[in-house]
Amino acid sequence: MLSDYSSATILTDDQVAPLWLNAVENVLGISRTRTASIVIPHGERSKNMRTVARALTALHQGGVGRDGVLIALGGGVVGDITGFVASIYKRGIDYVQIPTSLIALTDSAVGGKTGIDFAGSKNSVGTFYQSRAVACDPRFLDTLPRRELMNGMAEVIKYGLIGNTIFVDMIASHSLDDMPWERVIDHCVTYKAALIARDERDTRGQRALLNFGHTIGHAIEALSHYRIPHGHGVAIGMTAAARISTHMLGLRMQECKKIDDILRQFGLPTRLPLRMNVPALMEQLKTDKKTKKGMVQWVLLEKIGQAVPGIEVPPRIIKTSLHAII
Amino acid sequence: MLSDYSSATILTDDQVAPLWLNAVENVLGISRTRTASIVIPHGERSKNMRTVARALTALHQGGVGRDGVLIALGGGVVGDITGFVASIYKRGIDYVQIPTSLIALTDSAVGGKTGIDFAGSKNSVGTFYQSRAVACDPRFLDTLPRRELMNGMAEVIKYGLIGNTIFVDMIASHSLDDMPWERVIDHCVTYKAALIARDERDTRGQRALLNFGHTIGHAIEALSHYRIPHGHGVAIGMTAAARISTHMLGLRMQECKKIDDILRQFGLPTRLPLRMNVPALMEQLKTDKKTKKGMVQWVLLEKIGQAVPGIEVPPRIIKTSLHAII
Repeated sequence: MLSDYSSATILTDDQVAPLWLNAVENVLGISRTRTASIVIPHGERSKNMRTVARALTALHQGGVGRDGVLIALGGGVVGDITGFVASIYKRGIDYVQIPTSLIALTDSAVGGKTGIDFAGSKNSVGTFYQSRAVACDPRFLDTLPRRELMNGMAEVIKYGLIGNTIFVDMIASHSLDDMPWERVIDHCVTYKAALIARDERDTRGQRALLNFGHTIGHAIEALSHYRIPHGHGVAIGMTAAARISTHMLGLRMQECKKIDDILRQFGLPTRLPLRMNVPALMEQLKTDKKTKKGMVQWVLLEKIGQAVPGIEVPPRIIKTSLHAII
Repeated sequence: MLSDYSSATILTDDQVAPLWLNAVENVLGISRTRTASIVIPHGERSKNMRTVARALTALHQGGVGRDGVLIALGGGVVGDITGFVASIYKRGIDYVQIPTSLIALTDSAVGGKTGIDFAGSKNSVGTFYQSRAVACDPRFLDTLPRRELMNGMAEVIKYGLIGNTIFVDMIASHSLDDMPWERVIDHCVTYKAALIARDERDTRGQRALLNFGHTIGHAIEALSHYRIPHGHGVAIGMTAAARISTHMLGLRMQECKKIDDILRQFGLPTRLPLRMNVPALMEQLKTDKKTKKGMVQWVLLEKIGQAVPGIEVPPRIIKTSLHAII
């Protein structure tokens, strides 16, 4: 497949490159085609216009044409940047995802959302641009730091909470050491692909289900200047959304507690970070991307395994729920 | 229609704003909705990442949501930047084109090509992103400087040369003062829309026809550091492509001469600029975006009104033809 392209350029980060770059180049056999790699600093702080400009310059200087391909080798940050660069270089070239983190393997590498952070707002600049292929290999998880594995479990648990109670119970019956990763990845990717097939551009409410826990999650991440990792933000966000769900959709407190339990089982936080106060969070929520006529659209739970998108929540209920998880 | 959006933001330049901004705001009645305008310096030099970042920042600070709309009021530069910004702000918001130059009215406002210049290479960063609507009003031409009108005639003549000999004769029978602009705009826009409907992403050769005269045109513009206007580049490029066509497709010298004549009739150049030498041009051609396996794909003429895309031309024929128009 790669032989169809006149060149292949791998974009990766300085944590993944020493572990996997050579191996991936060998497996892909791209040492024989015209190839190059761009190594960026790891972490959310790289997700900016400067990194994009650097990658575009490298492609330009390398003489990469429209018939070249970009390969994202890394986690969510690498995938988001690579997709964005591919979508705007010469009005769009092909790209392929090789996700190496649990978040990327189960979530961010699928779906064609690309982007960078801009003006302090996460993913506020980007495009919808599908990769040609996503190559998922659980062996990448062998070199993933344990805290990253825990971090990724937040999105995995989300997939259960919004759509499949059996999947939640399956996860809960395992630990990080004996988790059947292939089944986990397969479930998440299949579920996400199905939602996206019905709502690629995130306009019909189907895809919005994936945003469960992300409304408050993003706000927490932003307020912490992205020092709090995405998975932690989403975990706390899901706890908060569950509390709100008890007021708005009659989710039972018993199920709220079950959600807290499974998050804690995988080392994820379920309470607001110290020093983060409720008024600041309420203010940050106003910058949420997913608004309709200025109103934030929430995804809430009727019960575990059944989420409902597009709900507007009165501020006092948000406040009460946030105070409940201080 | 605009009332469907929660906000409207006009992007325009410092030449068009004093002439038309108020009038357009009044006609659109957007003084009643939440509205703002972004005024950028006019000219190709604005078409860069800095202007894009400035516009994104303005949208962000203005709290523009996904349900806001961007309006491009201006020529090709304003349209290209607005389209690009609209395509990447929050992964894409709607935009509308109100073209004010002849080039924009007849060509660049239609088709969804957006972009900026990057690393000295024209339109090398951008997206395919269609506007929701293009509002064409020939009255904008009343305030267009005469040199801009002449500049725009190059693309208008191109539409005749690639597809309609009757249209060429119609244009030749008029001057800039009595040109039936409504018919001219209608012909160009209809023709372009038909090509794009068959080849939106510029991959099937249909849309490539529009590139007639642009291969050498872009190279001349780049070598002049964009001091030579687009229309002049295209005019010289069409003269050169016609010369190449005599070698490759048997275009008759008599038709070559007819092409020179109509270009000169509208004050357009048909010879290489002074101080631009053939080796430098040959070198610049190598950076062309429209390559297949590294080979530039030319659009040439079998006769006036009949263009053929995707032709590879031996370097010595390019050289001979360039020397013929020094």
